[in-house]
Amino acid sequence: MTDRPVLVGVDAGGTSTRSVVVDHSGRCRGLGRAGSGNPTAVGVEAASAAVTASVGDALAAAGLAGDRVDAVLLAMAGAATTSPLDAVRRGLAGLGVDAPVTVEGDLLALYFSGTPRHDGYALVAGTGAAAVRVEEGRLAATSDGLGWLLGDDGSGFWIGRRVARAALADLDGRGPSTALTGLLLDRLDLAAPATGDRAAGRDVVLRALRQLYAGRPVQLAGFAPLAFEAGNDPVASVILDEAAAALGHTLRSVILPGIAGPVVLGGGLLTHRRDLVDRLVADLAAQGSTPRTAVVPDGVLGVATSALRRAGVAVDEDVFTRVARSLAELR
Amino acid sequence: MTDRPVLVGVDAGGTSTRSVVVDHSGRCRGLGRAGSGNPTAVGVEAASAAVTASVGDALAAAGLAGDRVDAVLLAMAGAATTSPLDAVRRGLAGLGVDAPVTVEGDLLALYFSGTPRHDGYALVAGTGAAAVRVEEGRLAATSDGLGWLLGDDGSGFWIGRRVARAALADLDGRGPSTALTGLLLDRLDLAAPATGDRAAGRDVVLRALRQLYAGRPVQLAGFAPLAFEAGNDPVASVILDEAAAALGHTLRSVILPGIAGPVVLGGGLLTHRRDLVDRLVADLAAQGSTPRTAVVPDGVLGVATSALRRAGVAVDEDVFTRVARSLAELR
Repeated sequence: MTDRPVLVGVDAGGTSTRSVVVDHSGRCRGLGRAGSGNPTAVGVEAASAAVTASVGDALAAAGLAGDRVDAVLLAMAGAATTSPLDAVRRGLAGLGVDAPVTVEGDLLALYFSGTPRHDGYALVAGTGAAAVRVEEGRLAATSDGLGWLLGDDGSGFWIGRRVARAALADLDGRGPSTALTGLLLDRLDLAAPATGDRAAGRDVVLRALRQLYAGRPVQLAGFAPLAFEAGNDPVASVILDEAAAALGHTLRSVILPGIAGPVVLGGGLLTHRRDLVDRLVADLAAQGSTPRTAVVPDGVLGVATSALRRAGVAVDEDVFTRVARSLAELR
Repeated sequence: MTDRPVLVGVDAGGTSTRSVVVDHSGRCRGLGRAGSGNPTAVGVEAASAAVTASVGDALAAAGLAGDRVDAVLLAMAGAATTSPLDAVRRGLAGLGVDAPVTVEGDLLALYFSGTPRHDGYALVAGTGAAAVRVEEGRLAATSDGLGWLLGDDGSGFWIGRRVARAALADLDGRGPSTALTGLLLDRLDLAAPATGDRAAGRDVVLRALRQLYAGRPVQLAGFAPLAFEAGNDPVASVILDEAAAALGHTLRSVILPGIAGPVVLGGGLLTHRRDLVDRLVADLAAQGSTPRTAVVPDGVLGVATSALRRAGVAVDEDVFTRVARSLAELR
């Protein structure tokens, strides 16, 4: 068995990179992990080093040398202007891997992590947010994913920015009282002003601003969890309802009547916040849409099945299940 | 007359700096102008150089030497962390000005540009937005002004960001068709895609993003005028109505029942966009508030009257009118 060639799939994400070694029968043999593999986030050198490290780990876990690898499929954010492919090839050569390296979109890998079907949809919501329609196994349409300043409606940044604005408006005497204020001040290590003391509130606002403007804007996504921690707070509930409605709107904008689904849901928000998924499903149902949904933790399963498909393997429900189960055993 | 000492008021703004020489009778004698005097925007050296240059021009226009100056009052944004006072004093010494230099908030100067009354309100909306309550001639409360990322509801940035997001959502197939799209594409020198061609729309979106993310976020304020140029476009109208409502909300949050007004309106948006002022007044009226409003172009008149008050001159309606008229003759 170990003499037969294998395939490598790499899910190069903004936070971490995961690589999987899969054989042509659909059995996952080794899993590797490293830091961010997104060249836009960390630069080409660091991204390709993470890809190389995770592939090296996956091969070591499988007990295989690099020369067993037949093909490498790399899933990464589509809009990367600086391709890390040359640097990745050099890195992999150092592992003894001399196989073609192909790139596909991270949203396609996410989609195929939830289903073997060639037609359907994916919605991802982490720091950013985007939806895609897949037809005949290819990306047919993409919606949003336009970044924190100009899009990403309903994303972690979108929620986190609203959380911070709502808390500051409360302190500033402009907005309703909300549990988000105490949660934000705790995070910033600032003492809450006495209730109704507007001058003290304004002083705390100015202290908070100094911290908040010192970081990168996208770091506001780190306050998104506060909306979930605020319990039944009405201000937080409105933010989450509006986030779910925005995500539902983005998803609906790629849906064609003739393509029923499934809808694969991914990204940190949808993976970890069942509450938001429930609100999203309720929003879709209110608009007359009840697709089958599957929540996936990342794009590793999808990049493995895509690699198999590209190697000529027909990925039916049985093969999909075999890849999924053998991958789950390695996690 | 020219042997009597004079006062100098400086309105150091983010875009330009204006200085005025006023005598103790309330007659404005000379006006000077230079670039940005905001140390947060351009640095302490450039800001103090602008202040010095505008004071030099004002003295030259008045035909007076620096040693005639009794006191200098500098109006600038209150939250400046790096005070340019030392650099300003050195610059003024170079003009022969050896007088005390005092700083007061730019919003107070704006307020006193519209009225001699000691109790009332000011609302400013330019790139940013804030409201203040003035009691007994002093700032008693401030609302918003929290910057583009975390506040400034209804400001030029707020409008401009919504304009760009609406146009991109239209192109992306997520949002309603709007006249803002053509206006934005013209500004970005991009050709509009064929109607209904979603792939071509997506391509234009990605080209627009490259331009828009290359600049500083706050530059989105530059698209605010498109909301006014879009005529009766429903998307643009909603943006402007919501901006007026947000500004009205910020203003109402500083209003006390016992203090009737006046409300002084300033900043680029309110000075140049009568349409927005009308919407704001309509919004205030709908909430049961009909204060007397005055629109002012800048804070020069206010810094001149404040300088007089600090020199012991009682600025009544007559003196206020004399300062206003003599200043208007110099513009």
